[in-house]
Amino acid sequence: MDDSTPLKVALLGCGVVGSQVARLLIEQADDLRARIGRPLELVGIAVRRLQLERPGIDPALLTDDALGLASRPDVDLVIELLGGIEPARSLILAAIGAGSSVITANKALLAEDGGTIYTAAEAAGVDVYYEAAVAGAIPIIRPLRESLVGDEVTAVMGIVNGTTNFILDKMHTDGADFADVLAEAQALGYAEADPTADVEGYDAAAKAAILAGLAFHTRVNLSDVEREGITGVTSADIAAAKEMGCVIKLLARCALSDDGTIAVGVHPTMVPVAHPLASIPGAYNAVFIESRNAGRLMFMGPGAGGSPTASAVLGDVVTAARNRVRGTRGPGESTYSARGITPHGRVSSRYYVSMTVHDEPGVLAQVAGGFATQGVSLQAVRQESQGVQARLGVMTHLASGAQIERALQGLAEMPEVEAGISVMRVEGA
Amino acid sequence: MDDSTPLKVALLGCGVVGSQVARLLIEQADDLRARIGRPLELVGIAVRRLQLERPGIDPALLTDDALGLASRPDVDLVIELLGGIEPARSLILAAIGAGSSVITANKALLAEDGGTIYTAAEAAGVDVYYEAAVAGAIPIIRPLRESLVGDEVTAVMGIVNGTTNFILDKMHTDGADFADVLAEAQALGYAEADPTADVEGYDAAAKAAILAGLAFHTRVNLSDVEREGITGVTSADIAAAKEMGCVIKLLARCALSDDGTIAVGVHPTMVPVAHPLASIPGAYNAVFIESRNAGRLMFMGPGAGGSPTASAVLGDVVTAARNRVRGTRGPGESTYSARGITPHGRVSSRYYVSMTVHDEPGVLAQVAGGFATQGVSLQAVRQESQGVQARLGVMTHLASGAQIERALQGLAEMPEVEAGISVMRVEGA
Repeated sequence: MDDSTPLKVALLGCGVVGSQVARLLIEQADDLRARIGRPLELVGIAVRRLQLERPGIDPALLTDDALGLASRPDVDLVIELLGGIEPARSLILAAIGAGSSVITANKALLAEDGGTIYTAAEAAGVDVYYEAAVAGAIPIIRPLRESLVGDEVTAVMGIVNGTTNFILDKMHTDGADFADVLAEAQALGYAEADPTADVEGYDAAAKAAILAGLAFHTRVNLSDVEREGITGVTSADIAAAKEMGCVIKLLARCALSDDGTIAVGVHPTMVPVAHPLASIPGAYNAVFIESRNAGRLMFMGPGAGGSPTASAVLGDVVTAARNRVRGTRGPGESTYSARGITPHGRVSSRYYVSMTVHDEPGVLAQVAGGFATQGVSLQAVRQESQGVQARLGVMTHLASGAQIERALQGLAEMPEVEAGISVMRVEGA
Repeated sequence: MDDSTPLKVALLGCGVVGSQVARLLIEQADDLRARIGRPLELVGIAVRRLQLERPGIDPALLTDDALGLASRPDVDLVIELLGGIEPARSLILAAIGAGSSVITANKALLAEDGGTIYTAAEAAGVDVYYEAAVAGAIPIIRPLRESLVGDEVTAVMGIVNGTTNFILDKMHTDGADFADVLAEAQALGYAEADPTADVEGYDAAAKAAILAGLAFHTRVNLSDVEREGITGVTSADIAAAKEMGCVIKLLARCALSDDGTIAVGVHPTMVPVAHPLASIPGAYNAVFIESRNAGRLMFMGPGAGGSPTASAVLGDVVTAARNRVRGTRGPGESTYSARGITPHGRVSSRYYVSMTVHDEPGVLAQVAGGFATQGVSLQAVRQESQGVQARLGVMTHLASGAQIERALQGLAEMPEVEAGISVMRVEGA
């Protein structure tokens, strides 16, 4: 096949990202050809509604037969931008079965059932690339899969959901409540009408599973991820964070535990303002990596949006196309370490616990004793009298989730402690 | 060849980085084998002084016949960590001639004569990887070469020399003069006995040339880079930067000019404190990328040191080894765009110009008129009386180097303006 024979590309989905990918495939055709060594030809776009007006898209390319398009044996690369589990999974498997390499931004599917897809790709000898699935335009998959592959990653931590970062940012700046800021974010188009996937942390948890699997050369599924969203974050929590010199961020965190298992979780977390992740604004994403030899690295950039995500997709398209031209493949899934998941109760963190207590002698000693009984040592205590009651805030040293759980049970049983104890993880040394 | 046949690795140089690479090849052998699919075997280390004590290194591996080692036809991968132009170039060409892929951290050589090496590698069908040549452990070569390859990069800007960043940081914090801080940095081992390559900007300029070539798919050599070091930065400049809400950083900057040529320069630059590059501390490096679709990305991490640089080298070793196992190569040099270099006088920037003037009526108008004559408009002016004299600071809007040059000549001829006019570029909108 000579240098002028096009590689055929099929696009599944033509929404916010898909329409940008289609645009760039046409606008940048000459550059892409020069970079790949052969031209790309967009041969079809699968859409749900054929009738919809799509400016700049040749209507002759549109089809509502996604399975037919994905299965075409003459296609080289299939770009899947539908999202969700089905029909995306069946279409990707059909594409792989027909010998196509696949580029996808589908974090939900990869976190839920990536193994099925990687195994099929391995058997068929094709590539699956997914840089756009985590942190939008920020190159993070390739650095983990290839640049840091000669090192031992010990932790990956990130702000990987722009919607929740925007909401928490606003809550900090305006002192507003979650519900009000969510409504504003929805009005501005920063949050979906059904915001569950974002605000309950499902989206971040899927990304955490993908990052953890890559970083630690093992398979991690969505169900392995301890998940807590931001719906329970109150303006009182925000105020408490400020007092402690912190901001609250929804952090996805994957770390190697002492016993060789991996802790993977998504939690609203107090981050000291001096930490590089603390100043990541609005809709930006950032990923922080700690590794044995490289030390601490941070990557930041736009975490979502049509053009940034399309940039990540096109980078993968060029890489997969170059592999086709050379008759080779990129590195497949690496799961040789087969690490277990750290039981949630054994994951250690610092915590900030705040509560309202009766303002009477001996209460502080009793509360402190409640933590000590569970082996939790305290780093700082703040008490503020409010008449007959007082607000008590306690910053712990590293403690396991189980220790904190038991300490909280103990506190809840103390008559001096009011109901409504608030607990939050704290990042940093 | 089955999965247990080792890939043979030769190491040229066993200094700060080389000794860490040797250590990691042994310590991480099992992980590397699992990630590559075949074991690596370190077959020799070329050193200048055979007698030197090298803890942890098997003396049987050492040789002072670098050319013999680099030319071994049974070797698969040669890691070059000698630095400098010769004998590094000859050794790399010998390795390529013998069919080895090459991993190097040699920015000086790649910026001076990369073309010769890439051309030889292309002809021989082997890989040349050099992630460690720019910004130490930070994955920046691979993201530019592969992740952003479907996008159009418009600017790359970075702090890519830790020594000068440390010195400028100290000058800011302590208000100390350049010479004093340099002496301190030398005493601490952060600066070399001969600091020329760092403080005169040669090291940063080599990295700028490499980044520019990758970002814009063209060949850029060291001689194309406009270069200014930090030896002329005074404590008065630092104080002026602080007054303007800026810090001074040695920035490497590559940008696409309006006419399609590329501006590449290294200059001490005033950076507004709110800019992400302003807060990069001490020996850290950071690279900021602007691209058409991805938007603004930033990468930060340790810019030097044995272990971080070794991490980048090992990442390339795994990638090159995986290619060997699959009988393929990674992407070679991409120079199809063959862009010219923007003449230095036509590169545009904002500038801060400060000078001492006679404090008498009409001086400000005359100075402002001097800029206006050259078509340079002013964004801000600060005047501070000091008795018979006054300090005058002027922030320009975007202007070309030639315009500023001519405006400065005009100022120098005004009897009201004292000698010793200070000029500095200003980053940001």
